[in-house]
Amino acid sequence: MKINSLLNRRDFNLTLLAALPTIALRLPQSGNSLRIDSQRINSHLSELAQFGKTAEGGTSRVAYSDLDLKAREFVMKLMRDAKLEVTVDAAGNIVGRRTGTDQSLKPLMIGSHIDSVPDGGSYDGQVGSMGAIEVAQTLADRNVKLRHPLEVVIFQNEEGGTVGSAAMARGLTEKDLSVVSNSKKTIREGIKFIGGDPDQVSRPLRKKGDLVAYVELHIEQGPVLESMNRPTGVVQGTFGVERHLLRFVGQAAHSGSTPIPMRRDAFLAAAESALGFREIARKYTTPTARVVCTVGTIKAEPGIVTAVPGVCEISLDQRALDAKVLEQILADARQVSSRAATENNVTVEWKKIWSIDPRPFDPKLIALCTEAVQEVTGDAPQLPSGPLHDAAEMVPYMPVVMMFAYSSNGLSHCKEEDTPEAYLLKTIEAFLKLVEKVVTA
Amino acid sequence: MKINSLLNRRDFNLTLLAALPTIALRLPQSGNSLRIDSQRINSHLSELAQFGKTAEGGTSRVAYSDLDLKAREFVMKLMRDAKLEVTVDAAGNIVGRRTGTDQSLKPLMIGSHIDSVPDGGSYDGQVGSMGAIEVAQTLADRNVKLRHPLEVVIFQNEEGGTVGSAAMARGLTEKDLSVVSNSKKTIREGIKFIGGDPDQVSRPLRKKGDLVAYVELHIEQGPVLESMNRPTGVVQGTFGVERHLLRFVGQAAHSGSTPIPMRRDAFLAAAESALGFREIARKYTTPTARVVCTVGTIKAEPGIVTAVPGVCEISLDQRALDAKVLEQILADARQVSSRAATENNVTVEWKKIWSIDPRPFDPKLIALCTEAVQEVTGDAPQLPSGPLHDAAEMVPYMPVVMMFAYSSNGLSHCKEEDTPEAYLLKTIEAFLKLVEKVVTA
Repeated sequence: MKINSLLNRRDFNLTLLAALPTIALRLPQSGNSLRIDSQRINSHLSELAQFGKTAEGGTSRVAYSDLDLKAREFVMKLMRDAKLEVTVDAAGNIVGRRTGTDQSLKPLMIGSHIDSVPDGGSYDGQVGSMGAIEVAQTLADRNVKLRHPLEVVIFQNEEGGTVGSAAMARGLTEKDLSVVSNSKKTIREGIKFIGGDPDQVSRPLRKKGDLVAYVELHIEQGPVLESMNRPTGVVQGTFGVERHLLRFVGQAAHSGSTPIPMRRDAFLAAAESALGFREIARKYTTPTARVVCTVGTIKAEPGIVTAVPGVCEISLDQRALDAKVLEQILADARQVSSRAATENNVTVEWKKIWSIDPRPFDPKLIALCTEAVQEVTGDAPQLPSGPLHDAAEMVPYMPVVMMFAYSSNGLSHCKEEDTPEAYLLKTIEAFLKLVEKVVTA
Repeated sequence: MKINSLLNRRDFNLTLLAALPTIALRLPQSGNSLRIDSQRINSHLSELAQFGKTAEGGTSRVAYSDLDLKAREFVMKLMRDAKLEVTVDAAGNIVGRRTGTDQSLKPLMIGSHIDSVPDGGSYDGQVGSMGAIEVAQTLADRNVKLRHPLEVVIFQNEEGGTVGSAAMARGLTEKDLSVVSNSKKTIREGIKFIGGDPDQVSRPLRKKGDLVAYVELHIEQGPVLESMNRPTGVVQGTFGVERHLLRFVGQAAHSGSTPIPMRRDAFLAAAESALGFREIARKYTTPTARVVCTVGTIKAEPGIVTAVPGVCEISLDQRALDAKVLEQILADARQVSSRAATENNVTVEWKKIWSIDPRPFDPKLIALCTEAVQEVTGDAPQLPSGPLHDAAEMVPYMPVVMMFAYSSNGLSHCKEEDTPEAYLLKTIEAFLKLVEKVVTA
């Protein structure tokens, strides 16, 4: 986790770096010198991290908190510095606008979010937010004329369920507004608190066709780029998710007095199923399409050292980028769990928790993003996004693409969240290039 | 659970019985008519169950409670009715003594316990206690002369850790006395409460050689006799137990962003191990020697639907009647868990919770018990005891054997605890026969 600060040191040397336990960074080879201001972006990121900085070095700044409000004011000041005209929409999203040269063209929107999970890190959302403002600032500094208008958006409350982007793209229901967020405020109260108007969000704030595209930079929050030692990735889309609770019911029994053949062990049925789910993920994963199945929660009853578990409940989270594959891995998992149940003389019931369709990004934008990343970093690995993002909300309404920055140790939503500085700068540079490509395409 | 009351009905018929979902009882074929008083033993069991009877029909009468005290008075009255001379020893055990005809012979001790777990049933301990008193009463009624003295013991606080039998056989330490029991009283306070003297229990109350044997009747608390539809079993000894906590440590990771090959899933390592432990139990089980391995508790962290478990802790309880087999299955389990850890790129650490050596019963007494059960029920299945018993405490100090009565659905320590009446009577009959065989042998 110290790579970042090490890279900041003037006396930084490779001997020190080689001694690090994680990975050795070889900076991507590229003829381009940086076109963004590394000192400025670093300083903006660390100033933003002050709002809610924790003793452990992370950031805790949930949406609709006082800290969130202060950070939003800081962001609006940065936007004005970058010659953006700042407004807050009815949902409380901050929008900074720069006019294009061709009045007939629709705006390109770029941005991310600045709210964090409780006790989160200083990169999730923040890299994309500061990166988008840095792009606008760089364009302003160089007095670059763009044909399209450019809008930089800071979506409110991404961590509480992509609230701001949902309001923009599809509108919020009364039920959405009544949800209590991490700040203890309802969404309705929160929107008022940050200067929006909850009575004006039932209809989408932007209609289909209002924007030419939405493009977002975000940290990967996973270990794929790290495993390839690449600073930047092109995102294919956000995974579709099928999430279920599986309840295996057998019969609790005394561990000493019940012979193995007479047992109806609900945990062992769940264990067999969980191992089977991993095999399903392996079977459907291809070199270009990752598939994952995860058992994250396990509860066994009665939960006594001397009792055979009579009930075992596990969660199953399945993700794929292809809707048909998602359907197939769900069907396969049902089969695996039924077979495990039968073989262990227990029953199994499935209960749906949640699901979302895959949100594949726009092929033309993916191609442009690939070009930009290739040009700046020398390579353009493509990967799906496991986590959801504001970008996913926008997919049904406009062309969308995302770019990922390297996450050290694949960690996110914790104080250890990190992107080595050299990789961060390369990624923002690539993002600038992507924006230029989109507005000139 | 209704078999018992159905069998009590005058208009009981086979049509009704055949409609029951569990098993159909065929009464054991035996030429003997009952020599014990079925009405009396039924009435004693149901009178005893009144002390702590729960609304749900079970019994909640923990050691050292007011209910325990009242039930003890009831038991002492029954003993006096059975012409036993009643004393309470320093540990608070109730002992009813009947003199033998040969003053040079050591007494045979029979008995069990009357305390229950919180919200327990009305058979565990109670069948053996009332059965032992019934045996003494029958001998008194018929004026049968025995060469050996006969002592009926009601051990105190079996459920709190075989306290009374431990005091009798090996003495209690200050640490033992300071343990807080289910009644919220310490063992020291409890012993005073029931009329014992905790200052006199540091040495064994009976020395090696003081007793000719200890013989106990108990419900099986397991499903083995039920699976064979036999009323009574001969117990080979109590299992040795190795009990450990296994902690698998990998790395928590986002379920969406972490490809399967990069995961270090602690739960899947635990799941593979648990399935491997069952294979070990299967491998070492023979037609005459059962071996069991049980994973009863499972805790996974962070315990979030969307996170790969980074830590998983499971309990492992292993039991065998042969000390060498116990040693071997423990070694095999260590190997299985290490392999599963390596294959899943996680670590595993073992922590011992508790262990006890196997306590095999006396071969001569097992032979006599087999004869008695065979003569009364027509068959004498042998089985180990999974649960510990007061009898296990006595093993190092004198010859011991136990006899088991059928447990409906293998259930115990719950209100559903049950032994069908016909099977209960046959078992007490066999127990009477065993006592006669021991004192005349």
